[in-house]
Amino acid sequence: MTLTNLYEQILLKRSFLCVGLDTETERLPAHLHKSAEPLFDFNKAIIDATAAYAVAYKPNLAFYEAAGASGWLQLMKTVAYIRQCHPKIFIIADAKRGDIGNTSKLYAETFFKNMDVDAVTLSPYMGRDTVDPFLRYEGKWAILLALTSNPSAADFELTEEAHTGKKLYEKVITTSMQWGTANNLMYVVGATQAAMLENIRKIIPDHFLLIPGIGEQGGSLEEVAKYGMNKYCGLLVNSSRAIIYADNSEQFAEAAGAQARELQQQMGRLL
Amino acid sequence: MTLTNLYEQILLKRSFLCVGLDTETERLPAHLHKSAEPLFDFNKAIIDATAAYAVAYKPNLAFYEAAGASGWLQLMKTVAYIRQCHPKIFIIADAKRGDIGNTSKLYAETFFKNMDVDAVTLSPYMGRDTVDPFLRYEGKWAILLALTSNPSAADFELTEEAHTGKKLYEKVITTSMQWGTANNLMYVVGATQAAMLENIRKIIPDHFLLIPGIGEQGGSLEEVAKYGMNKYCGLLVNSSRAIIYADNSEQFAEAAGAQARELQQQMGRLL
Repeated sequence: MTLTNLYEQILLKRSFLCVGLDTETERLPAHLHKSAEPLFDFNKAIIDATAAYAVAYKPNLAFYEAAGASGWLQLMKTVAYIRQCHPKIFIIADAKRGDIGNTSKLYAETFFKNMDVDAVTLSPYMGRDTVDPFLRYEGKWAILLALTSNPSAADFELTEEAHTGKKLYEKVITTSMQWGTANNLMYVVGATQAAMLENIRKIIPDHFLLIPGIGEQGGSLEEVAKYGMNKYCGLLVNSSRAIIYADNSEQFAEAAGAQARELQQQMGRLL
Repeated sequence: MTLTNLYEQILLKRSFLCVGLDTETERLPAHLHKSAEPLFDFNKAIIDATAAYAVAYKPNLAFYEAAGASGWLQLMKTVAYIRQCHPKIFIIADAKRGDIGNTSKLYAETFFKNMDVDAVTLSPYMGRDTVDPFLRYEGKWAILLALTSNPSAADFELTEEAHTGKKLYEKVITTSMQWGTANNLMYVVGATQAAMLENIRKIIPDHFLLIPGIGEQGGSLEEVAKYGMNKYCGLLVNSSRAIIYADNSEQFAEAAGAQARELQQQMGRLL
């Protein structure tokens, strides 16, 4: 998917919502526990209820790997289901991978060829080798961790470089922006760091940003839009638990749909 | 497994060899292509042929995920096989994971409870939250990327911090060494960076180091031992492709065993 395709969907749906499919066996409604594929059944219902309000889905690999080989299969079925029923929705494998070149090449094949997602999140720690193999796929994206939303993000991401005064996350952005373009590279910037978005937009005015941390992690949608939006919107704002676990009864999907719609309407006003 | 247990195995086998199970479907000997579980069958033969010379095995997740749900199952069977037949061998899931707290907790469960490996490699980029859940398991280990062996390691790992003059990899070590102990934390230091081992040993004299990059990546075993060894040996030196792909015929396992034995004998002389 190109940046233009993504922007078209954002305009069409008046939404820049990404729904995080952090689907955890233990948190599923009781009636799904009997299912042979509870993660997939839950996801399917969530997708059907939220697809009108979302432009992206982001399954986090940790939740599927926790269910072993069956979890992996259910993830692949989830991706295939989105592809089949909602082919214009952007799919992000939240995997935060990063390994040496030949190994990264294999991860890229897994996610882009075998699973056919649009994007994979990557950790930049080991540098360019770990990202390059993902940038060789036309129409696919690498999403690099820059400034994350977790409490210990400051441990290393805010390290100030000697001579340049750059923070590590700024160095990650200024260095890696030369490896690809705004058409195949995005960055993760936590919503809890909205004040720094203004600064980030000076460095990369055109790139899309994937913004986690809205909702349970405390970030504000208005702040994110104020400092982060660009002429193509340039934002994918993720919400996971606040949507998918909005309700724990047999009506979980309706509740998720209502939550997604509420966020979509806020987003519509901000666009 | 404790540091003392690991050291006992090193003394017993006169080896600090870790065999990297980077088992790739396309590189397997032709006769295994008919197998329903070619990765597992290959691994089993490699393990039987090398277990006398190795103290650790390190499957890299990328190679199993590339084979989908079946790959995941074959990885779990490989780990279970090592546990059953060679219970004193240290097993490292080379996963380079790193995510926010609740997600990292799930990764830790996957690898330590569901799969029962001894250690997982982690990326330090997002800080302490991403590592802590792994340190809560008694007898299990987190292995943090510090200074890696790939060509682009210098992109960010060598970033010099203002005021302290520390390189990022040094900051990763000095900060994270306070999160755990030499009994549950190790660090990845590439063999291609042997000259920096002396410096690293000044910061962490007691911790084990996992050293990739011997063989195909060009590192020297003698240099690594000279600068990196401590009173408990303190080294796990990994070799993957040079051992497991030593030969591509039906005699692949014998060839792998011979390669592992040669490395073990070099190591025996260095201990």
